[in-house]
Amino acid sequence: MNRSAVFASLVIAGLSLAPLGKHVIADEQPFFGYSAASSRTERQWEEKLRAIPTPDNLRSYMQRLTARPHNVGSPYDKDNAEWIAAKFKEFGLDTHIEQFDVLFPTPKERVVELVDGGPKFVAKLQEPAVSVDPTSDQQAEQLPTYNAYSIDGDVTAPLVYVNYGIPEDYEYLERLGVSVKGKIVIARYYHSWRGIKPKVAAEHGAIGCLIYSDPHEDGFVQGETFPAGPYRPPDGVQRGSVADMPFYPGDPLTPGVGATKDAKRLKIEEAATITKIPVLPISYADAQPLLAALTGPVAPEGWRGGLGITYHVGPGAAKVHLKVTSNWLTKPVYDVVGKIPGAVFPDEWVIRGNHHDAWVNGAEDPIAGLVAEMEEARALGELLKSGWKPKRTIIYCAWDGEEPGLLGSTEWAEAHYDELRAHGVAYINSDGNGRGYLNIEGAHTLEKFSNEIAREICDPETKLSAWKREQLRAIANAKTPEQREEIRKRPDLRIPALGSGSDYTAFLQHDGVASLNIGFSGEDGGGIYHSIYDDFYWFTHFSDTDFVYGRALAQTGGTAVMRLADAELLPFEFGDFADTVQTYLKELKTLLQKSQDDIRERNREIEEGVFKATNDPRRPLLPPPAETVPPHLNFAPLENAADMLVRSAAEYRKALDQANANGGALLASASLAEVNKMLMTSERKLTNNEGLPNRPWFKHQLYAPGFYTGYAAKTVPAVREAIEQKQWKQADEAIVVVALVLQQEADLISSAAAKLAAATAH
Amino acid sequence: MNRSAVFASLVIAGLSLAPLGKHVIADEQPFFGYSAASSRTERQWEEKLRAIPTPDNLRSYMQRLTARPHNVGSPYDKDNAEWIAAKFKEFGLDTHIEQFDVLFPTPKERVVELVDGGPKFVAKLQEPAVSVDPTSDQQAEQLPTYNAYSIDGDVTAPLVYVNYGIPEDYEYLERLGVSVKGKIVIARYYHSWRGIKPKVAAEHGAIGCLIYSDPHEDGFVQGETFPAGPYRPPDGVQRGSVADMPFYPGDPLTPGVGATKDAKRLKIEEAATITKIPVLPISYADAQPLLAALTGPVAPEGWRGGLGITYHVGPGAAKVHLKVTSNWLTKPVYDVVGKIPGAVFPDEWVIRGNHHDAWVNGAEDPIAGLVAEMEEARALGELLKSGWKPKRTIIYCAWDGEEPGLLGSTEWAEAHYDELRAHGVAYINSDGNGRGYLNIEGAHTLEKFSNEIAREICDPETKLSAWKREQLRAIANAKTPEQREEIRKRPDLRIPALGSGSDYTAFLQHDGVASLNIGFSGEDGGGIYHSIYDDFYWFTHFSDTDFVYGRALAQTGGTAVMRLADAELLPFEFGDFADTVQTYLKELKTLLQKSQDDIRERNREIEEGVFKATNDPRRPLLPPPAETVPPHLNFAPLENAADMLVRSAAEYRKALDQANANGGALLASASLAEVNKMLMTSERKLTNNEGLPNRPWFKHQLYAPGFYTGYAAKTVPAVREAIEQKQWKQADEAIVVVALVLQQEADLISSAAAKLAAATAH
Repeated sequence: MNRSAVFASLVIAGLSLAPLGKHVIADEQPFFGYSAASSRTERQWEEKLRAIPTPDNLRSYMQRLTARPHNVGSPYDKDNAEWIAAKFKEFGLDTHIEQFDVLFPTPKERVVELVDGGPKFVAKLQEPAVSVDPTSDQQAEQLPTYNAYSIDGDVTAPLVYVNYGIPEDYEYLERLGVSVKGKIVIARYYHSWRGIKPKVAAEHGAIGCLIYSDPHEDGFVQGETFPAGPYRPPDGVQRGSVADMPFYPGDPLTPGVGATKDAKRLKIEEAATITKIPVLPISYADAQPLLAALTGPVAPEGWRGGLGITYHVGPGAAKVHLKVTSNWLTKPVYDVVGKIPGAVFPDEWVIRGNHHDAWVNGAEDPIAGLVAEMEEARALGELLKSGWKPKRTIIYCAWDGEEPGLLGSTEWAEAHYDELRAHGVAYINSDGNGRGYLNIEGAHTLEKFSNEIAREICDPETKLSAWKREQLRAIANAKTPEQREEIRKRPDLRIPALGSGSDYTAFLQHDGVASLNIGFSGEDGGGIYHSIYDDFYWFTHFSDTDFVYGRALAQTGGTAVMRLADAELLPFEFGDFADTVQTYLKELKTLLQKSQDDIRERNREIEEGVFKATNDPRRPLLPPPAETVPPHLNFAPLENAADMLVRSAAEYRKALDQANANGGALLASASLAEVNKMLMTSERKLTNNEGLPNRPWFKHQLYAPGFYTGYAAKTVPAVREAIEQKQWKQADEAIVVVALVLQQEADLISSAAAKLAAATAH
Repeated sequence: MNRSAVFASLVIAGLSLAPLGKHVIADEQPFFGYSAASSRTERQWEEKLRAIPTPDNLRSYMQRLTARPHNVGSPYDKDNAEWIAAKFKEFGLDTHIEQFDVLFPTPKERVVELVDGGPKFVAKLQEPAVSVDPTSDQQAEQLPTYNAYSIDGDVTAPLVYVNYGIPEDYEYLERLGVSVKGKIVIARYYHSWRGIKPKVAAEHGAIGCLIYSDPHEDGFVQGETFPAGPYRPPDGVQRGSVADMPFYPGDPLTPGVGATKDAKRLKIEEAATITKIPVLPISYADAQPLLAALTGPVAPEGWRGGLGITYHVGPGAAKVHLKVTSNWLTKPVYDVVGKIPGAVFPDEWVIRGNHHDAWVNGAEDPIAGLVAEMEEARALGELLKSGWKPKRTIIYCAWDGEEPGLLGSTEWAEAHYDELRAHGVAYINSDGNGRGYLNIEGAHTLEKFSNEIAREICDPETKLSAWKREQLRAIANAKTPEQREEIRKRPDLRIPALGSGSDYTAFLQHDGVASLNIGFSGEDGGGIYHSIYDDFYWFTHFSDTDFVYGRALAQTGGTAVMRLADAELLPFEFGDFADTVQTYLKELKTLLQKSQDDIRERNREIEEGVFKATNDPRRPLLPPPAETVPPHLNFAPLENAADMLVRSAAEYRKALDQANANGGALLASASLAEVNKMLMTSERKLTNNEGLPNRPWFKHQLYAPGFYTGYAAKTVPAVREAIEQKQWKQADEAIVVVALVLQQEADLISSAAAKLAAATAH
């Protein structure tokens, strides 16, 4: 660390708490779920906690953890796990390493070349070392560029450019009269999780898939490239998993159960999440000659990237030869698990996690988040030594194998399924960290809680609270005056729902443990994601260089964990939740209505001859097919259930207000234990054992990654995806299923309200 | 012409009239302004007319006219004028050449180079010949690449990239903290008429201006470049005028009067339309090293072009040396004017024009339009020989000097100002031609007429009427369901208002002669505009290669001219016009309201700290300045006048319906002459002698080119631009002025209605 950075971070540290501290002292409103007295105590402990994490520690942890490549199965991955475990122990956590054994393919052969006409070209498939960057030359330990869980294959075929390779791109290809059947497709990264691209390509008959990083997305179009700037250099490649995780994440051979030594395993050829066609990721330097060799229609405007060429859809005269084979070996993953036992409710678990494995050296992803989590653990250890005793059990986890497929967290959450269903209060995840705004996504029963936490955190740059900064950004980004007014007037900022892409998935969507994902971002542009350049040099030159956002993340995670662990009444809240469900219902009705309107209009235009009339014979574009106008659906069950939720939430709010009267003295009542037990299961009530149609692993009925988006959430997925995929019967059935789940939730909330009211009446 | 093209065009010729012909015969509705009997006769003559133009002739005219460069002052420009005049005479038109003498600068010295740091680079400023293109090597006769009417200058300064160089780009530069004061700016072409770029740059203190063609707009991003495809090659340059034509067009030395030999002339230094700073246009090959040498902020997303580089705003360490000097000589322009005297109303003139001068060989611009006009003239000549006698005088014009500044048409319209005010019925302009959709823009008193003409024209590709094809495109492009429904239900398609950019300007906006601009486009992409590659080779390979759209344009222009010349009652219509004025009024009120809302909201956000909170210290962006919320304006005078227009239009419609009863026999009445005289002046009533505030040459109160757009129209310009420029007092005053003009128009329409009713009553 250079001296000026130390100095800067110390100055900021000195300033950061002052304005918030004042505010906090003036604010006499007790924390949600706390009596006035316990709130005051808690506030003091939390302030102590937030003063502990230091940028220096974050920096030195990062330097150590990113010193060598530490992917699953590598020596340094194990070494890191052991080092983290030792640290946790040193901090005072009861720590062990839990091992699972998972299928983890690594590259054996990789070939991409132009054959049969056109200029000879063999793709390099190699990221060069950069002289100023001391860890970029550790080639012997670096995983080559590849997409994990690509099936083995050796194919030669003409190439077709499919833009982002999402379903609507294929609809446009059809209008262009271009088929990918028997072809290799080349898709650019972004606009979907990468695993969607080979999945959709295979569904359309493609026999191979290349995924490249266009400079438009994270290369020179965005700014200077590494090492001159943070963006992706010409030979930079995004590694990544392409397992069909929206079907199920985790070890492909052990869906639904922990991949313990003795677990029953599928054969590799039975594993449904391995891709159907071979896939490789490539750099834009490797992609350019392939794209330049394409002929056929000029790519439509939205498909054009930033390479200085005319983008064509293809195919061209030249063929591409793609060969991928892997070593299909079983590898250990090492989950580090450190516990602080609860003093009052040891059977109520507040879990915190971040993964430790990386594709290569992984400074931003995941170590920037992990080091914050470690500083939280250290800070909690310090508090323990000062006499603090959390009511609930706290479990700090450092997951292995997140990158290939959320392996460590999923296997752990599957192995401990029954315990987590019984004891899980909440899971708080992070995964890397950057600069900018505090993002909290997650379960809406924790929306009010999340807002409360965000109000405590000081943004290092503006000295505003993270909540205020995020609110002001939301005002700036609002699309309509109505949205802006809501943001200004609604007491809580809305939090986005969780899709997938990190370790909360199994907790929330399989186990039904209310989860949050936290992190800072928005001012941390770059193009080193999943490359050898995501390392200590890059991070300390271009991201959170003085680790002040790392400290802010530690403050956020630590505050959230403590607040949950110490509350007399668990801070689940159902008013925001019920309001959110109402917005989902409205969205679903609008989605159907829009689909009806669009199809009706398009059919009319087909009949009028709009598409024929506007077809340029020199750039032919076929009319879209006429479609049946979607039927009306019976939303009544959902509407009734959503209304029940609103009523039960009001009941709970009323009971809570009574409990809060007189400084909330009644909150301390021992009889609250029963209410807490009910609250703890409120997220479980949103799951059912059957799971989503065609993907039973996903049990949550409100949140899932989209089957065709991967990262992005689909809320009320069974209904929404049925509408999107025009499965009307399934949509009608799903409405009933989801309504039932919501009714059960409403019943639980009403019961909790009654119980709380009864406890208060005592 | 190759044989297959001939064959194809004949086949199409054979087919083209059949479906429309049938339709026409079945349709017994008389033409607007015609009795049933005269409509039948007219229809027969028009069908004869439309059968005459041939692709072969269009092609051979084009080949002859584009054989050599024919810019103002060149030998071939004069030669072409004489050849066109001879042709007009041969066709039977009473033809002469009218000469004006205008200031026309041509390049003497041109230098663009990087100096003081960075790699040495001297711009080529030269378009290379292309071996397959036989006219591209006529370098001795080609005007070098330059912007006419740039002031002489020799400046050296840092460079700043200003995107399109329009006012809002400078607002963003201010937020970036980048000043252009004392700098040279580099702007890309498009999004405004080119002359706006140096004007706005000079207003902000820049001392020089480069304008380049980014490949994003018309180069390789759009498709293959010439000669492999139609788009702009790396060294292609867009020449063009940068005279401040929104102030006044035509000879800079003779504003408002014809540039005859004895005209009183300004001194060059008094000419307000010459730029304030030196300007040169450059290719993207020449621009790339300059842009690559810029540092400073990364250009925001909407500013990034298609060159494979990171776009920076600048400035950089390197300076640019820009030197431009011209030969400031007086040159002759040769307007070809051919007349067919009117048999009944010789003092009512229907004028048709297209320019003949080009920047270089000019096949698309302007010869594709000119050859269509010539075929119209030939066709009318044929009809004359067959006994057709137009009621009104028809004047066919081939203008010189359009490219440098609408010189030929403006000087002619100024020289014949009194005659045109007395006799001008309508002016129909074209300027080049391409493939695709029939575009008609112009005076809304001719909107219904334009729709009637478009219904007669067969689109060569789809065999739909040009009207139907355009309607279906409008449906496809509609932004809202409401717009779509209007397009489907309104009997007439709306026509856009005229701004500037071609020879209608002086007729419509200075003389007050109702004008239309016609041409086919929308399937004619390319990047040879104003380069040496806009020639016969390019046109016959990439545009209307078989000249079927050229024939369609001749059919359109010829039909429009005949229909106007033969009508018993001039086909001006005021219902559509009054409706259009209502939409303008609504737009103005919305514009003010939006300005109030936006400023109020922005001020609120400034106070809330939104801009400070969302400012990334590593990419700083200053808050916009707080502004006074615009006052409410008194729109009542305009509202009342617009309502009067609606009432008078209804009176006229009623009188017309009565006149049309019984086959419209009464239309033939000689007393209609007085009504026609009134109708003829209806466009003049929309002008006033004072003209627009600060630009008195522009006398039309409804249509003008925007002072900061150049091409694009500003309707109700005095009011609209005052609101846009936040001149509230001027806006209030302008409302009264425009209202007065509209009242006078309404009075005229009411009088015409009364006169028509009286004539009918006879």
